Amino acid sequence: MSDVVRIGFLGCGTVGQGVVRILAETGDTIERATGRRFEIGPVLVRDTSVSRPGVDPSSLVTDPEAVLGDPDVSIIVEVMGGVDPPREWLLRALRGGTSVVTANKQLLSRHGPELLAAAEEGGSEIRFEASVCAAIPVIKVLRESLLAAEIGAVTGIVNGTTNYILTEMRRSGLGYPEALKQAQDLGYAEADPTEDVGGGDAAAKMAILASIAFHTRVLIDDVPFEGIDRLQGEDVDIAHQLGFVMKLLGVARLNHGAVAVRVHPALVPSDHPLASVSGSENAVLLESSTVRQIMLVGPGAGGIETASAVVADLVSIVGTQQGSFLHNALADAKRPLAAEGSLESAFYLRLEVVDQPGVLARVASVLGECGVSILTVLQRGEGEGARLVMILHPGLESRVTTAIGQLRDLPEVRDEPVLIHVVGNGEASS
Amino acid sequence: MSDVVRIGFLGCGTVGQGVVRILAETGDTIERATGRRFEIGPVLVRDTSVSRPGVDPSSLVTDPEAVLGDPDVSIIVEVMGGVDPPREWLLRALRGGTSVVTANKQLLSRHGPELLAAAEEGGSEIRFEASVCAAIPVIKVLRESLLAAEIGAVTGIVNGTTNYILTEMRRSGLGYPEALKQAQDLGYAEADPTEDVGGGDAAAKMAILASIAFHTRVLIDDVPFEGIDRLQGEDVDIAHQLGFVMKLLGVARLNHGAVAVRVHPALVPSDHPLASVSGSENAVLLESSTVRQIMLVGPGAGGIETASAVVADLVSIVGTQQGSFLHNALADAKRPLAAEGSLESAFYLRLEVVDQPGVLARVASVLGECGVSILTVLQRGEGEGARLVMILHPGLESRVTTAIGQLRDLPEVRDEPVLIHVVGNGEASS
Repeated sequence: MSDVVRIGFLGCGTVGQGVVRILAETGDTIERATGRRFEIGPVLVRDTSVSRPGVDPSSLVTDPEAVLGDPDVSIIVEVMGGVDPPREWLLRALRGGTSVVTANKQLLSRHGPELLAAAEEGGSEIRFEASVCAAIPVIKVLRESLLAAEIGAVTGIVNGTTNYILTEMRRSGLGYPEALKQAQDLGYAEADPTEDVGGGDAAAKMAILASIAFHTRVLIDDVPFEGIDRLQGEDVDIAHQLGFVMKLLGVARLNHGAVAVRVHPALVPSDHPLASVSGSENAVLLESSTVRQIMLVGPGAGGIETASAVVADLVSIVGTQQGSFLHNALADAKRPLAAEGSLESAFYLRLEVVDQPGVLARVASVLGECGVSILTVLQRGEGEGARLVMILHPGLESRVTTAIGQLRDLPEVRDEPVLIHVVGNGEASS
Repeated sequence: MSDVVRIGFLGCGTVGQGVVRILAETGDTIERATGRRFEIGPVLVRDTSVSRPGVDPSSLVTDPEAVLGDPDVSIIVEVMGGVDPPREWLLRALRGGTSVVTANKQLLSRHGPELLAAAEEGGSEIRFEASVCAAIPVIKVLRESLLAAEIGAVTGIVNGTTNYILTEMRRSGLGYPEALKQAQDLGYAEADPTEDVGGGDAAAKMAILASIAFHTRVLIDDVPFEGIDRLQGEDVDIAHQLGFVMKLLGVARLNHGAVAVRVHPALVPSDHPLASVSGSENAVLLESSTVRQIMLVGPGAGGIETASAVVADLVSIVGTQQGSFLHNALADAKRPLAAEGSLESAFYLRLEVVDQPGVLARVASVLGECGVSILTVLQRGEGEGARLVMILHPGLESRVTTAIGQLRDLPEVRDEPVLIHVVGNGEASS
């Protein structure tokens, strides 16, 4: 592989354009870490008259041969979807020694073993992090970090559409049809939602995850699945009353040495790690005797998120020169450390004060003069004194420090003020 | 590197012995995936008369020269801790071309750049996944999967002792001294807990994470830290009443191009992803514009968990032949698929029945005859009918299926029975 790595694209929709954008924005970092620079080669599209930002119009082609037959292409990124024709094109590329990065879960869950065999035959690589849970690096973690961990179970919320619908059914008391409609209106569900709500999308992902986790062949036809389309709102409500949360789960586990992989709705105890995964988020819980439980959580879909996983796979294929990269990065110390006073935060402030008229006004005016603004106040009498608890709006910490110095000196303030950071904008959860 | 990779150990306590055990148990898998077999070479210990399971007594040595000077050792595992003498030993090994895997966060957070420079000089590698959050693969994910993700913030619960203490203060209303005592009694805190409760342990980990996330030099002295030892129970309680959870957070972020890394207690909104990380668990939240939020959760300590990270680093150094390994694994299909009837699960069962005496007895006797046992029953009148909701104890699914078939035929059962899986033993959260 030369220092320039030419990439051919099969398809260039939202994900493909995301890959182009990330490579443009982070090309320097990638080059420092890998010693290679990625170059956008031929890009197969349906219509070359539609421009793609960051892609030279002369690179757009409608003939797959322009990608598959280009001898300078080292890696093909397949982001067109569908089983045919990508299957035959990728088999040909892999057998011919061209590596492949794909986001195509349908193809992998049906023909993964055949594609891997073609890669072995051609001495090429196939990587597919983007096929499961977008940017969540679950395949890399299973393939590499947990290779020797003897995984016993993989349990996942691997479909964001259904998790969004179930979260809304519980949160707003909507029935299934209304929650689906809302998800469609907001772009979380497609016009034909069958693949998501019926469980087929989750089954394809679980087939891929189970193959990697258990080092064995699992195809989508091996995965019985049931979706949420027949769930009734009352069961979601009753589950909640009983201390459970309803989720669509993919469950893959070893059962006396045999592999069982399924997708079905399930009641999850509300203190279970997967119970708090809400909205369109995805999560995968990996269990083994050596690592106990490791959970990865993040966005399971989205153009740029999926593109990020494709780029991670491209970097994996060319390999990193981690030692030099980190050494140079750490030796350079190119980023300054932030000055103490330049940071912003929201705060919790507790003051024990004497209980007499005008104390709150006095405290509030000190804060106001220092440019510190109050979001919430709680005042309560405590014997001869009173307790003032405030949540302060996010602002420059240096101002808060100055204010505390002045409050400490007020005769009405009895003990050392208690000041604790608050994450976010100071607002508690609804 | 030959097909046999000889490993020298500096130290062989709980973590070292865990590494020996995992290598023995998973050596075949590792060999299939990497083409290499790890061999236990010289093991530096204080006292050679104490036996280490899995280690040939003749491999135990008290002279570091027996490890550092062994020309056949390709990788040194350092699990002895402390800054000196490991620093000079590892510098010598790395400069001489021997790679290093270490779990030593104190050493790395003080001398990381020097060690990386030595590795570059010697053409060797240094890996240190085990130094931060044990088996949670956060360093690999940052170094590889998110290399091009332009991380903007890393927020972590990276100390299990303090998270355990804070969780107990909130759950049981204990004051700090009582919760610390309990943590010590249960082995979650050391006799001298200063390093954990004072925030120094978290600061060392955050220095390492910030270096990798932002590709810049951050040492422990760059990280201001504050622990939980001066927190008052009433602030934990008030935070809870206001809709927040108190956590000890490590916060690293880019602030107008500058790096700010700190450790301090903080109020976290109760619906924030880090709020539900309880007990001795660790979690790291990674934020970037391309991957939004990815969170990794798991055990942040423990001998076998830390050993698992050391083994993952050993595998990373020798590299995997992923294509062949996966191809062979998937082609073999060596694990059978579980037979449908062999699986066990707990279930939620809802029946709409006619409201007349004896119905519950009838239903319960059908379940009993099929060998299905009931954990919880809820019965409620609904107009002319009644609703029966049951949680069934975990048991063979084939028995439940048989029972449903019989219930469906009962004249008292009005609609199709609703049957949904329940995760765990059927009990809701307390």
